[in-house]
Amino acid sequence: MVKVGDTLPSGSVQEGAPDRTVDLSQVLKDGYLIGVPAAFSPTCSQGHIPKYVTKARGGSSAPVYVIAVNDAFVMNAWHESLDPQKDSGVHFVADPAGEYVKKLDLLFDATGLLGNHRAHRFAIAVKDGKVQKLDVEPDPTQVTTTSAERVL
Amino acid sequence: MVKVGDTLPSGSVQEGAPDRTVDLSQVLKDGYLIGVPAAFSPTCSQGHIPKYVTKARGGSSAPVYVIAVNDAFVMNAWHESLDPQKDSGVHFVADPAGEYVKKLDLLFDATGLLGNHRAHRFAIAVKDGKVQKLDVEPDPTQVTTTSAERVL
Repeated sequence: MVKVGDTLPSGSVQEGAPDRTVDLSQVLKDGYLIGVPAAFSPTCSQGHIPKYVTKARGGSSAPVYVIAVNDAFVMNAWHESLDPQKDSGVHFVADPAGEYVKKLDLLFDATGLLGNHRAHRFAIAVKDGKVQKLDVEPDPTQVTTTSAERVL
Repeated sequence: MVKVGDTLPSGSVQEGAPDRTVDLSQVLKDGYLIGVPAAFSPTCSQGHIPKYVTKARGGSSAPVYVIAVNDAFVMNAWHESLDPQKDSGVHFVADPAGEYVKKLDLLFDATGLLGNHRAHRFAIAVKDGKVQKLDVEPDPTQVTTTSAERVL
């Protein structure tokens, strides 16, 4: 698993549509990378990510990137549902085959319920391109150390 | 590929949530199984499935099941976005690992854009538990023979 002091890995993720890619290590030098198991799941949609959107809209935090092993159409629709004007500044990026999250070694096997390997619920604080802090929920259906209140 | 005269395969899909499963061969004896590559994609959300919802709401058609290789959270959210009261009668079922669509031999490799193998855009008319008619779009981004106007 990625650890404090590591450089955030280079790798493409999709933002907005499958053909629009960004390299996370280039766009996220200082900010937060928040991993979730499943767009539109109750925990992710009701408890976890809306608070990041609300806090980001306040304008006080560094950039926040939300990542999941979902495709870009799904992440874009989820973004629209949680942030209809897309004016919070929170980015919703898709890692459809889990390749980026695999580089972080933060996948778990959710094949039974969700069909494939998904991202743990995690929060990484990035400073100068390096992992400054890492929290991973032991139970991905719960939000404790990765909450917006604790992380931002 | 499944063909006219074949019995619709037995197999579980999820409807509404990952822990709610139905066997398609049991619930769909007479009606339509409509396959799409990606929930929330422009072609599926704007051109294709809304017309099934509209026609089904008219009450004249046999049951319609929409299936995709997406998880149940995504299919449920997509259902809510296209049919907010969920009163059309159209079912949105999830085949998250593609196991059911694989039995139909109607998967294609969408790994590059969507991360995995997805369902072709197809329409199967089912009569007495057997495939009565099958249409598969040669180009999954287009809607021609699988449109609600042509199928229902």
